[in-house]
Amino acid sequence: MPQVTVTRRVRFNAAHRLHNPDLSDAENRQLFGLCNSPNFHGHNYELEIAVRGTPDARTGYVMDLSELARTADAVIVEPLDHRNLNLDVDFLRGINPTVENLVVACWRELLPRVTSGRLYRLRLWETENNYAEYEGD
Amino acid sequence: MPQVTVTRRVRFNAAHRLHNPDLSDAENRQLFGLCNSPNFHGHNYELEIAVRGTPDARTGYVMDLSELARTADAVIVEPLDHRNLNLDVDFLRGINPTVENLVVACWRELLPRVTSGRLYRLRLWETENNYAEYEGD
Amino acid sequence: MPQVTVTRRVRFNAAHRLHNPDLSDAENRQLFGLCNSPNFHGHNYELEIAVRGTPDARTGYVMDLSELARTADAVIVEPLDHRNLNLDVDFLRGINPTVENLVVACWRELLPRVTSGRLYRLRLWETENNYAEYEGD
Amino acid sequence: MPQVTVTRRVRFNAAHRLHNPDLSDAENRQLFGLCNSPNFHGHNYELEIAVRGTPDARTGYVMDLSELARTADAVIVEPLDHRNLNLDVDFLRGINPTVENLVVACWRELLPRVTSGRLYRLRLWETENNYAEYEGD
Amino acid sequence: MPQVTVTRRVRFNAAHRLHNPDLSDAENRQLFGLCNSPNFHGHNYELEIAVRGTPDARTGYVMDLSELARTADAVIVEPLDHRNLNLDVDFLRGINPTVENLVVACWRELLPRVTSGRLYRLRLWETENNYAEYEGD
Amino acid sequence: MPQVTVTRRVRFNAAHRLHNPDLSDAENRQLFGLCNSPNFHGHNYELEIAVRGTPDARTGYVMDLSELARTADAVIVEPLDHRNLNLDVDFLRGINPTVENLVVACWRELLPRVTSGRLYRLRLWETENNYAEYEGD
Repeated sequence: MPQVTVTRRVRFNAAHRLHNPDLSDAENRQLFGLCNSPNFHGHNYELEIAVRGTPDARTGYVMDLSELARTADAVIVEPLDHRNLNLDVDFLRGINPTVENLVVACWRELLPRVTSGRLYRLRLWETENNYAEYEGD
Repeated sequence: MPQVTVTRRVRFNAAHRLHNPDLSDAENRQLFGLCNSPNFHGHNYELEIAVRGTPDARTGYVMDLSELARTADAVIVEPLDHRNLNLDVDFLRGINPTVENLVVACWRELLPRVTSGRLYRLRLWETENNYAEYEGD
Repeated sequence: MPQVTVTRRVRFNAAHRLHNPDLSDAENRQLFGLCNSPNFHGHNYELEIAVRGTPDARTGYVMDLSELARTADAVIVEPLDHRNLNLDVDFLRGINPTVENLVVACWRELLPRVTSGRLYRLRLWETENNYAEYEGD
Repeated sequence: MPQVTVTRRVRFNAAHRLHNPDLSDAENRQLFGLCNSPNFHGHNYELEIAVRGTPDARTGYVMDLSELARTADAVIVEPLDHRNLNLDVDFLRGINPTVENLVVACWRELLPRVTSGRLYRLRLWETENNYAEYEGD
Repeated sequence: MPQVTVTRRVRFNAAHRLHNPDLSDAENRQLFGLCNSPNFHGHNYELEIAVRGTPDARTGYVMDLSELARTADAVIVEPLDHRNLNLDVDFLRGINPTVENLVVACWRELLPRVTSGRLYRLRLWETENNYAEYEGD
Repeated sequence: MPQVTVTRRVRFNAAHRLHNPDLSDAENRQLFGLCNSPNFHGHNYELEIAVRGTPDARTGYVMDLSELARTADAVIVEPLDHRNLNLDVDFLRGINPTVENLVVACWRELLPRVTSGRLYRLRLWETENNYAEYEGD
């Protein structure tokens, strides 16, 4: 019974800034530099969602990627796309939206919604040069 | 003795449809949607072939990637490129060509042919947004 | 009044083969090689649709790219995605689906539907290494 | 004396929203949809800057691309990167930051600074699927 | 009779340095900086070869891209791939291998070999951020 | 306490050849083929540097990627970019610069410099089709 990992990529375009409200403005600027710019900047984020399991004998699917895409649309793209990650998103309240914190928050949203196979890895690209991965550890 | 993984990407352009002959046409349409279109559709597939081992002291190679490319041409590209994955390929007879089933089938073809290092991981891209990985588990 | 060109990329995955029914099978094989394989192969096509004009003073748009995307979905993606370009598409009847013939056929479908600005250039990618461009000349 | 076009790509990550202050909120929402979200969203922009001329006999350069990169850093990247295009940028005051309006505004900034060869074309990517081009017409 | 442009991309990996032998070492260093490093550096070059013409009624081809690929292999890839552009290439003798000079030199090699349609444009990528285009002007 | 992996990509353009000085020229040519060309060839290398750890409660960072970029500039880009990997680099003396040997050598340079989180994986791309990965095993 082979264990296969299937991955689906989704995209969202969002504004954010890095800012810890428990620190002074000077500390925030010193820690986060340009990423702390007060009026936000933004990114074309790409999230790769990996689900692992045994392909179903009837369908040949670990998980129907169309269903995974619909889940990802509802849980990730609808709340995050064309939004401000500091101000607009319920599941990010109180979270400084670094790529590390974002990938963990996305994991928590997706985990209960993956019912065929198991959520295995998320990779979140912030720019073409930076990404974060989380596997639930 | 470092363990290094080297990867070579190969490409093939093929037609396929998702279809389980044990199910009715209505069930196939319901399960696979557009991917069940009767006259096939197709993809530019990309297969990343990863081989792991200790670099040879004389060559600095885990495996000569030119030899891996020749192996991949013989085992993967020649039988699959410009072919119909449902009709034309001996090693896919009776297999519903989902990306999950394809990556496992490619593994079985490649495994006995990798003689330097060991086959470690296959990643098969079906579109720029979907891929499957298999590590022999 | 600046003249700006905006481009939107759409994708479709389709099967095809190159075949001229006025020629013998032997001539077809000689002319088209693997691209003439009888049971079809396929590609992840990408079509870049460029529209040129003056940005509207009220919207700043040459053309609302969401509207262009809807038009492209109706005219290009819906009829071509997950289809067989030799068998399934009304506007390709009798056309040998080379990338050159396809880009001209797409132009003819899109031209009357672009009503803001003017259709300026189509670029159709068949593989990452091959594409055709047409500007209506 | 060959005429060659050299292109340099630069990147900036910025927040924006589409909004015409002369229109009501309802009209803005109707025209711009999600792109009008009040708290901004953002993109990883890529700007391709093309300069055309005859390669200099001494250097073989149309324009030293390192100098073009320094110019682009000063004129484009420094004012736009990690900024809000609606609020933070002097040369965008009063401009609705559609990709069309942005590419024309960048042209006006760059034109007087290209002193070797002549500015020939800008291509501004907003997402991997959308871009605008301007050639000064 | 539509005019269509087809493009084929080929690749070569080569070493080079920028150096004008008519200048002093100090002048070369000042003009070319790191690109003048004495022991060479290198690139994964990509050349896009565009041919323009009317698709042939019998084949649907402006030019058989397999034939164009064979021509490009013989004229461009075989002499340049895994070579030193300052030392190893007959058709580059005496040419400072800037991307501008290289694209013009490739044009001169390819022009007499394109016999179906006409050579229309070359685009030579030196890095993912830099390229030069030449159209024979 | 989630374990997250963050990755930063850096680039360098370098010349090299594959050559084992303990072997004869004929053996080298036989083993390495074109990669043994005497006057070098070159590549646009890309190195993905992955660091793993728990995001800091104060910053949300596993490691400040700007600091990682500065480290990578000092340790990898400055010594390798626009250099000859066989002749110019202290930490590659006596090493045949295969992609396997290079990725291990880069690991040894980076390991003592990553002080926040731990160096987790390097992936070194030599061409768009070949890469090597090393995780310190």
